[in-house]
Amino acid sequence: MHFVAAIDAVGGGLRPVLGLHETVCSGAADGYGRMAGKPALTLLHLGPGLSNGLANLHNARRASTPLVNLVGDMATWHQAADPLLSSDISALAHTVSRHVHTCAPGQDLGAAMAAAVSATAAPAGASGSRVATLIVPHDLSWERAKQPANGSSLPASVLLNQAAAAAGVSSAAPLSPAAQQFVRDAAAALQACPRGKAALYIGGRAALSEGDALLSCGRIAAATGAALLCENAFARVDRGAGLPNLQRLPYFPQEAAAALSQYELLLLMDVRRPVANFGYEGAPSQLVALPDEAVWEFDSWGVDLPAALRLLAELVGGAAITPNVNCKGAFCAPSRPQLPAGRLTAATMCQTVAALQPPGAIIVDESLTSGSSYWALSRGCPQFSHLTLTGGAIGAGIPLSVGAAVACPDRVVINLQADGSGMYSVQGLWTQAREGLKVITIVCANRTYAILKVELARERITPSNGKAAKALTEIGSPAIDWVALAQGMGVPASRATTCEELAAAMSAALARPGPSLIEAVL
Amino acid sequence: MHFVAAIDAVGGGLRPVLGLHETVCSGAADGYGRMAGKPALTLLHLGPGLSNGLANLHNARRASTPLVNLVGDMATWHQAADPLLSSDISALAHTVSRHVHTCAPGQDLGAAMAAAVSATAAPAGASGSRVATLIVPHDLSWERAKQPANGSSLPASVLLNQAAAAAGVSSAAPLSPAAQQFVRDAAAALQACPRGKAALYIGGRAALSEGDALLSCGRIAAATGAALLCENAFARVDRGAGLPNLQRLPYFPQEAAAALSQYELLLLMDVRRPVANFGYEGAPSQLVALPDEAVWEFDSWGVDLPAALRLLAELVGGAAITPNVNCKGAFCAPSRPQLPAGRLTAATMCQTVAALQPPGAIIVDESLTSGSSYWALSRGCPQFSHLTLTGGAIGAGIPLSVGAAVACPDRVVINLQADGSGMYSVQGLWTQAREGLKVITIVCANRTYAILKVELARERITPSNGKAAKALTEIGSPAIDWVALAQGMGVPASRATTCEELAAAMSAALARPGPSLIEAVL
Repeated sequence: MHFVAAIDAVGGGLRPVLGLHETVCSGAADGYGRMAGKPALTLLHLGPGLSNGLANLHNARRASTPLVNLVGDMATWHQAADPLLSSDISALAHTVSRHVHTCAPGQDLGAAMAAAVSATAAPAGASGSRVATLIVPHDLSWERAKQPANGSSLPASVLLNQAAAAAGVSSAAPLSPAAQQFVRDAAAALQACPRGKAALYIGGRAALSEGDALLSCGRIAAATGAALLCENAFARVDRGAGLPNLQRLPYFPQEAAAALSQYELLLLMDVRRPVANFGYEGAPSQLVALPDEAVWEFDSWGVDLPAALRLLAELVGGAAITPNVNCKGAFCAPSRPQLPAGRLTAATMCQTVAALQPPGAIIVDESLTSGSSYWALSRGCPQFSHLTLTGGAIGAGIPLSVGAAVACPDRVVINLQADGSGMYSVQGLWTQAREGLKVITIVCANRTYAILKVELARERITPSNGKAAKALTEIGSPAIDWVALAQGMGVPASRATTCEELAAAMSAALARPGPSLIEAVL
Repeated sequence: MHFVAAIDAVGGGLRPVLGLHETVCSGAADGYGRMAGKPALTLLHLGPGLSNGLANLHNARRASTPLVNLVGDMATWHQAADPLLSSDISALAHTVSRHVHTCAPGQDLGAAMAAAVSATAAPAGASGSRVATLIVPHDLSWERAKQPANGSSLPASVLLNQAAAAAGVSSAAPLSPAAQQFVRDAAAALQACPRGKAALYIGGRAALSEGDALLSCGRIAAATGAALLCENAFARVDRGAGLPNLQRLPYFPQEAAAALSQYELLLLMDVRRPVANFGYEGAPSQLVALPDEAVWEFDSWGVDLPAALRLLAELVGGAAITPNVNCKGAFCAPSRPQLPAGRLTAATMCQTVAALQPPGAIIVDESLTSGSSYWALSRGCPQFSHLTLTGGAIGAGIPLSVGAAVACPDRVVINLQADGSGMYSVQGLWTQAREGLKVITIVCANRTYAILKVELARERITPSNGKAAKALTEIGSPAIDWVALAQGMGVPASRATTCEELAAAMSAALARPGPSLIEAVL
């Protein structure tokens, strides 16, 4: 409560956004961080509040999103009593964070917050996490503390909030001689590789149009004939006409391993080595079978990635390449699918979205099985940002949309939202209404956990159509009325059962200020 | 998926109930365990699935509810690859569980599940937890395993489910000589204590009408003049006409400590020593200031509690007492408040419920500030079970109602549900509709996190009415339309703005099969 009351004291430096469940807060912070490139701050109430936020913090960890959690704890002198709300907050925090700190009496809370913010800017840890968690016992928040600058005294809660408000984007260090040598060696390997046998595997900051890392990747591919691949579950890839033409790795390990097996040289651009999402009988664990010397990792040294990729492009003779139309296939030509007509299916839903999405859209894609055709259909759309589910913890889409819209008020967010996953964080619609966020949620209402049915079939599990399997994979009885849910939380909504209805609803939603929801009945 | 498919193989021994978020599953398991006295089983998907269930598992831990979680993990040979959905499941599980076991290749999964079930029946640990968590790597579920009985081979997933289906209520061991001596010593202390200076503080199994532990508590009080207190945040207290007349401990520590300070001798009946929910400046941590020899703990030896209390009642001369009307104030006389009329307030809402609740009702009470008058108003109602929020992790009410209704299909569940807390697990309404559960949810729609405003005021935090404090404690803009939300998930719903409307809606809901929701606008 002290930190809440102190938010006003930092004078506009922090914008409080309320979520009706902590999974909305942590997912929104993830969406904000992916788009803004600087951390959002969550304020969570003890262990249960952090617990509720963990699933989307898991996604943020896998997305390498900079994010800071401020978690209140019991007063230091009350912890031994083990009151009802006590639990092991530090243990919970460690499962998602690369930095966990519990403040002690007498500690400078402003400095502790500054350290947490700094930790989000350092190179990601082994799991990719840039999440930092600061645990502050209750009594520390009501103490007064000295300001380092002038020695005057302020409430500790205000100092902490000031430090959080000061968070910004840190600038990268220049390329060291060792890093430059690494790039020269990679360039030599790339040029020595037979044409068509090298691939750039792109993620993280290499997939963003900010700076020119993504552009450099396209230039490298255009100059060398290397393939351009990207993760299947990516945090954010900037896409569309004039941007590099990426091939998304397939979801299932056998297909993904087959796609990667064509290459003899792999350059990993700010991304972990690809591994299978699950282990299946007879399927691989690691998706790359190459020896270590054929895999170059451009993510481990924490320096200026755009500069490194610019240097690599220059060394392979691609520095001057302009991303004009179909430049050796490395860049996407402008193109849009036609507006489809008639029956609404998963494919025609994707086609409608790709036909109508406005320039600069942010596509938050938790469409899972329903959205499989969207990637190819949207290739030539006006430039947009594409965000997906990075950690497999479903329920990211609605909260990610909240955060992306807060970070980018001048862009339209379109959330392609699977219905089963959407119900995990449906409360986030209320925050969209409250904040007047420009988010269009398109619910892919197939009324089933379709991905589970695919898994049952792939694992040849019988009885895959048994009573229990049906009861635990189908959500159509009763059918969820998404229009009622959205309206119940203040979001204008409609239902579409044909392509024409979806197109009309999208056009109306684009024309209206604030959020909208469209239930696309598939 | 293997365990889902194998549920059918155990032939009706397990009833699969789907939740649209794991907090529904874990809260429902808590409600089931509180009413059935035997564990429900949750099936959770890796670390994120467990994370989503943690808040209500925290409540279950504080309620000492027997409960088993089955959590799938990555295949053993795939864990080193750290796939997207991997996280430290064991660390997460330890924060709520008293028993955590990760199965290893070759292990008998049936025996591992039987051990987990057994762990829920043993005396609760220091934190009160009877939660057991079994972690099963993916590859173990598709192995076949020998049946101990006849050596034939079955899928491990079936064996595990069979062990879970066999879970029952364990019978307690008879009183040992040491336990009998403890009871004799307690009886002597009670009889030596000045009249009115002793109190029984009741919780856990001592508060249940099953067996006669609760009845014995009333007899002990009637015979000795001891006061009858119960926890503020209790798992389940059986109440109503003819049952002991309990005084509920106040919520705030100053008031609770004052209530307890009247007594020189305290008998703790299956309950932890009372402590403050939070530490406040100048307020106590421990609520009981008595020396250890004046506090008798009847919960630490894991034997037959009803037998111990029966013996105690006999030793103090209360064995023959019949709980007739107002027997020295120790038992409740039948009485019902009048149906109120006119404006709906928190108090008249509670009065209406107490006036209309049917015999045998299960009151799931997450009403927080709105329900403060319900305790006294319902004292003389026909016997009912009263369940509250035990761990402070809000969002328990709707899921608890699901589990209580599954456990007791012949009883009516009435959920007094604060609106802010209700939004934490609103998805549970869908499960109520799907399973046709007899649950009447009464939403206390005051459109604010009222408890936070109380806390702000008590801590004299300024500006308590600042912009941020308002933004983060009020949920009325936009107003949540609970009728739309309920109907959107298949639950018939209506809105009440007067006492008459609430009474009419309750009568209609009682007459209708399946669930209903009433938004009581306060």
